[in-house]
Amino acid sequence: MNIGKIRKVEIWITSPTTSEDGWSKVKSFLFLRITNSEGVEGWGEAFVLPYRERGVAELILSLASTLNEFESLNPYLFNEKVIEICDNHYGLDFSAASSAIEMSLWDIIGKINEKSLSSLLSDCSKDVIQVYVNTWSDRMPNDSELTHRINYLISEGYKSIKIYPLQNRSPKEGHECIEKIEQNSIQNIDLMLDLAVPKNPNHSLELLEFIKKNNTNIYWIEEPYDGCDITNLANYKAKSDFPIVTGEKQCGVAHFKEVLSRKSADILNPDIAGVGSIVQLIEIADLSDEVGVKVSPHCWDSMAIAASAMMHFCASIKNSEKAEIYPDYIAASKNYCDPGFNIVNGESKLKKLPGLGVSINQNYLSTKSFYYNELQLN
Amino acid sequence: MNIGKIRKVEIWITSPTTSEDGWSKVKSFLFLRITNSEGVEGWGEAFVLPYRERGVAELILSLASTLNEFESLNPYLFNEKVIEICDNHYGLDFSAASSAIEMSLWDIIGKINEKSLSSLLSDCSKDVIQVYVNTWSDRMPNDSELTHRINYLISEGYKSIKIYPLQNRSPKEGHECIEKIEQNSIQNIDLMLDLAVPKNPNHSLELLEFIKKNNTNIYWIEEPYDGCDITNLANYKAKSDFPIVTGEKQCGVAHFKEVLSRKSADILNPDIAGVGSIVQLIEIADLSDEVGVKVSPHCWDSMAIAASAMMHFCASIKNSEKAEIYPDYIAASKNYCDPGFNIVNGESKLKKLPGLGVSINQNYLSTKSFYYNELQLN
Repeated sequence: MNIGKIRKVEIWITSPTTSEDGWSKVKSFLFLRITNSEGVEGWGEAFVLPYRERGVAELILSLASTLNEFESLNPYLFNEKVIEICDNHYGLDFSAASSAIEMSLWDIIGKINEKSLSSLLSDCSKDVIQVYVNTWSDRMPNDSELTHRINYLISEGYKSIKIYPLQNRSPKEGHECIEKIEQNSIQNIDLMLDLAVPKNPNHSLELLEFIKKNNTNIYWIEEPYDGCDITNLANYKAKSDFPIVTGEKQCGVAHFKEVLSRKSADILNPDIAGVGSIVQLIEIADLSDEVGVKVSPHCWDSMAIAASAMMHFCASIKNSEKAEIYPDYIAASKNYCDPGFNIVNGESKLKKLPGLGVSINQNYLSTKSFYYNELQLN
Repeated sequence: MNIGKIRKVEIWITSPTTSEDGWSKVKSFLFLRITNSEGVEGWGEAFVLPYRERGVAELILSLASTLNEFESLNPYLFNEKVIEICDNHYGLDFSAASSAIEMSLWDIIGKINEKSLSSLLSDCSKDVIQVYVNTWSDRMPNDSELTHRINYLISEGYKSIKIYPLQNRSPKEGHECIEKIEQNSIQNIDLMLDLAVPKNPNHSLELLEFIKKNNTNIYWIEEPYDGCDITNLANYKAKSDFPIVTGEKQCGVAHFKEVLSRKSADILNPDIAGVGSIVQLIEIADLSDEVGVKVSPHCWDSMAIAASAMMHFCASIKNSEKAEIYPDYIAASKNYCDPGFNIVNGESKLKKLPGLGVSINQNYLSTKSFYYNELQLN
């Protein structure tokens, strides 16, 4: 498993836009391409947030300068180097940078060995991954708009749908929203509730009091508290009839070890492009599996590169939970990326092409980007 | 408390060097100057690590672009904006960036109001701050070299000294090193033990077994485990006769709330230039004080700007612990910075000049820097 010398590192950051269906704003994505001396290209992606994209790009360029220190580069050695540089000084921006590079190394290895990422990670990887769709919108849809959206998504074949009941709603209104959705949906669905760390932390408990009485379609409850608020998460989980999800904003193995040891979650959802590396995510998944906890990688990223990595990861681990899809982001990237999977009847089918299996139209990507930078390595 | 419009943001990153006394490598420092439309200048500093300096600089430039959104800019409003942008996605690089900007805003406010930072923060701030000196060196000094260094520091007037007993030593050897220092010191000192998150976590417990028997000069034990490893920290604290310190690599209020609620520390030491902001550090200090925990801001930064901010902070809060000094870093910055304090007989005396009280020779700073960038704001 050797990648050879890296010749070039390129970064694109796409401009934020509005989704084609008008449902939401699509944030910027940060894409990375590394090319080795044989001309093999690997793609990666970093989780980025507003005001932090260029910072992550600089962190990538600095970390990438270490790539040719290795006689025999591979993702495991790069991960060791990153942990040494990190020196227990964790941060999502730093972890997103290392995630992007490591993801691209896996893509190259897959291409060199003509194996898909999921086949590299497991000898018995799945071909089909269960997914759920996210209905997040900054437009703060009312109950009627949300129900309409959900029925559209059901008609598209999706069977598991995530909503934000406390977005712009009190706990009582959030509960009413859930009831309306359950009554008005054209078909039974699994409903994920993302509480998204409410500003008033009492709201999470108040909503739980409402929903534990009579809502049966609820599949999980996500982020009732900040991911660092481990004690409150543990107490909430003890009170909840529904699985509790945390981890999308956290990084590094040490944090997740603590969450597991405190019994603070039923499902961990570190972001596939923010946790630090796929190697670290595998370690988190293995530790989770030992205590009966599942992993559903978060993917508030493009439905191009990061989502392809997520599908391969979910296909390869035994304790994976449903994978995250932003349907409005799929259209946003389809002109510059053919991802490594197809969504058919609300399921994801891996193409099992080498590496991540993504195909990128670089010229089109460039027209959609406000930032491009490259680093030549010797 | 209004700063007016910001006209310019400038960033310098100094080149790493070797300390004048040859004791250690001096890492890069990141300094920030903002200038308002009246020409008042404020200095700040960000905690930076190798490979991450330029990333933090980019994060600063992005965050600084928000500065003129405020009709009436001040550190509290900027802190609110930063927390909104952070959106619970914590990271030391991001927090270091916001720390640097916020520090510079305090400096400007102090200059506008002709009040020192400590006087802005408290009506009854102290003039003298107790300090301890750090003996960290990448050269991994042996017991004899370390004892020699400690006796030199004692002769310079310092009375509290931090060592790294597990650096390149087994727990048994670490204990022997402590014994030798206590026997060979020319004067009784308070000894801080920094375990610096040993790679083998059992070593922290093994060392504790040795030292609890007969070492009386030990003032505190720092980082026996990773700051995220809250359960192990709590268990260690329960077993230890000595105060436990954690927090130098962590950021944001939520993490420290959890550490306090778990009774995992006697002293918190968030880095003055990495925690996120002085406003957040005040909140952490207040929460600590409610449960009898003290705060000793970490300062693995220059002894110029960040150390001046630290001294003002320690002078202003009632539950401050000894402040951190790198004696070998003082010489490294003396040619470009006259700090806001003087070290006299192992104590820090604040000059009580406006703001941070630092005076910078910009030309000399530029000759010591490998990076300079500026942002003009309208």
